[in-house]
Amino acid sequence: MSISHADTACTRDSLSRLDRRAPGKPFLSRTARCCLLLATLLGLSVVKAGPPVLLIHGGAGTLVRDQMSAETEAEIRRTLGLALREGQQVLASGGSAEAAVITSIRVLEESAHFNAGKGAVYDADGGHQLDASLMRGRDRAAGAVAGVRTIRSPILAAQAVMNASPHVLLSGEGADRFAREKKLEQVDNHWFDTPLRLQQFQEWKEKSAATSADTTEAVRRGLLPADRLYGTVGAVALDQSGNLAAGTSTGGMTGKRWGRIGDSPIVGAGTWADSDCAVSSTGHGEYFIRLGLAQRICNRVAFQGLSIAAAADQVIGTELTELGGTGGVIVLGRDGGFAQRFNTAGMYRGWIDAEGNLEVAIYADEHDPD
Amino acid sequence: MSISHADTACTRDSLSRLDRRAPGKPFLSRTARCCLLLATLLGLSVVKAGPPVLLIHGGAGTLVRDQMSAETEAEIRRTLGLALREGQQVLASGGSAEAAVITSIRVLEESAHFNAGKGAVYDADGGHQLDASLMRGRDRAAGAVAGVRTIRSPILAAQAVMNASPHVLLSGEGADRFAREKKLEQVDNHWFDTPLRLQQFQEWKEKSAATSADTTEAVRRGLLPADRLYGTVGAVALDQSGNLAAGTSTGGMTGKRWGRIGDSPIVGAGTWADSDCAVSSTGHGEYFIRLGLAQRICNRVAFQGLSIAAAADQVIGTELTELGGTGGVIVLGRDGGFAQRFNTAGMYRGWIDAEGNLEVAIYADEHDPD
Repeated sequence: MSISHADTACTRDSLSRLDRRAPGKPFLSRTARCCLLLATLLGLSVVKAGPPVLLIHGGAGTLVRDQMSAETEAEIRRTLGLALREGQQVLASGGSAEAAVITSIRVLEESAHFNAGKGAVYDADGGHQLDASLMRGRDRAAGAVAGVRTIRSPILAAQAVMNASPHVLLSGEGADRFAREKKLEQVDNHWFDTPLRLQQFQEWKEKSAATSADTTEAVRRGLLPADRLYGTVGAVALDQSGNLAAGTSTGGMTGKRWGRIGDSPIVGAGTWADSDCAVSSTGHGEYFIRLGLAQRICNRVAFQGLSIAAAADQVIGTELTELGGTGGVIVLGRDGGFAQRFNTAGMYRGWIDAEGNLEVAIYADEHDPD
Repeated sequence: MSISHADTACTRDSLSRLDRRAPGKPFLSRTARCCLLLATLLGLSVVKAGPPVLLIHGGAGTLVRDQMSAETEAEIRRTLGLALREGQQVLASGGSAEAAVITSIRVLEESAHFNAGKGAVYDADGGHQLDASLMRGRDRAAGAVAGVRTIRSPILAAQAVMNASPHVLLSGEGADRFAREKKLEQVDNHWFDTPLRLQQFQEWKEKSAATSADTTEAVRRGLLPADRLYGTVGAVALDQSGNLAAGTSTGGMTGKRWGRIGDSPIVGAGTWADSDCAVSSTGHGEYFIRLGLAQRICNRVAFQGLSIAAAADQVIGTELTELGGTGGVIVLGRDGGFAQRFNTAGMYRGWIDAEGNLEVAIYADEHDPD
């Protein structure tokens, strides 16, 4: 990238917003003032930003401005910024992409604002079942857990599966037992409880009982918002050695039953990393599995020669949309290419460069410089 | 294909075997006699065979001639032939590729000779946990179950997930409950018991207890044969409407624990079907997941323009082998292209054309006309 992210963003954003508010005023001074204000608010210095070394997401969905309080939005943006800065510090001090991904995801898992770790949605039985996966591009090492109930950090459990088991995917009570054997921190399942998710669960129960519809059907009929089907956090990172990693963590789908497994713990669907391309996705998991979505983007880069952005456009903008699925991805290439793409009203997202210049966004109409 | 499978096979096979047995005798008459004999034994008429409409596998591994009795080998070949004929009859009568795949896999699940359904291996607790997946190429519909214990036919459960749930992958007790709700036939977990697998389980327990090695480690150290890690059945089919489907069913890994899920129930790794390409795989599942193997072959066809055979060669012969994994695949294209590739000593396999001409093979040195 030859121009500053902050510059581009402010210019584009200010053009669309300030021009509406104060038509006729001098353009350049307005833009300059906007940029300074935004940069100050976001803690950014207006410098030329380099290509991102870390991207994160906190889920995609029906995120529209009038449904979120200013306090909640500010807290979410602050948490996304914290996750980016903590992950970037790992990279800046020579840490691996894998370590940075885990560090960022840990911040989001511990926040009640995202459907992963603390703040996970409720399953049909009123409990929580969590999933996570991790993949390292260099050697395609991978680990994942599905349907765990007592591991405080599912992404740490995924890492333990990768590094300390001969397997890639462990599930259910067996995966919880594995994590206990590996001395990972355990919590009571109620530790994941939060008032917001409890309220959503009660709403789901009422709608389900009234209509005999399960969650997917209730969403299809417009009784529940589409993002009640999902909600995920994820990160992709590129370390100083040129290695990529990707990770994803989720509390799954409200009212989940039958041991349903979505795309988040599925290497190839929810998470993918190879030597040139890393992806973490969030969305209506069944569609992501049927497209092999995360791997598909990287295969289009590797086999078809598409850029990261063009591959993400093709898979999210065309293929996912045509199949009827909704959601989004963050993608990072070894060559500095990157993308965040979603076909929903918004996606919690952010990116940071090697110098610590960062941006955070939620809505579709916010600046996306890639 | 412009020449008969049976002709090619007999010629190549007879060249290598009969020349060793009776050097110096006239070549053509020997070949002709061999072909007639083989064709009679296998119930084949020596005619020009068309491209396959159905391929099956029954697992790959250390299949060498001196480790299998003639009776067992004959019974396995007979069962593979039966699975092919029953599947092909579905196609010949206008049935869907999905129905043919299920019909063939049902025959193999019900046979104690294969690690799927009856004859499934034992897990670490001395029980059985079964996995299966199914995918339809036309609309990418998919269904799968992982770690089920009481469903007689896991592939029928995968079909029920695809057709009668909003999900793709159900697991554990929840998946068993779903199957009960859908009135699928239930059996006691002991129904899957067989003497051969019990003997393998006892051998595994002794080796594990003596060395503290889990199955993967025991195989790595040469204490157990590599195919003790896997064993799977699968089918790919092309119906008269030009639609493809793929399915896979397995009893998993001997001594499986921690709720381990292998590649068989993972759409993209163990099973894949799109409009042009269908794959079922068998092998050391962790490697297949890390390569997104089934989808990878089809993506090389779609995005790179490789033929089915070249894509299978690249992924099995080069990528899987370089990563250190073992196993094999069957692949079928809408254009009549097909492949069966494995990097093990053998793979139970067979294929049949629209007219019912079929071939069955086990060892690596048997004829593979693709």
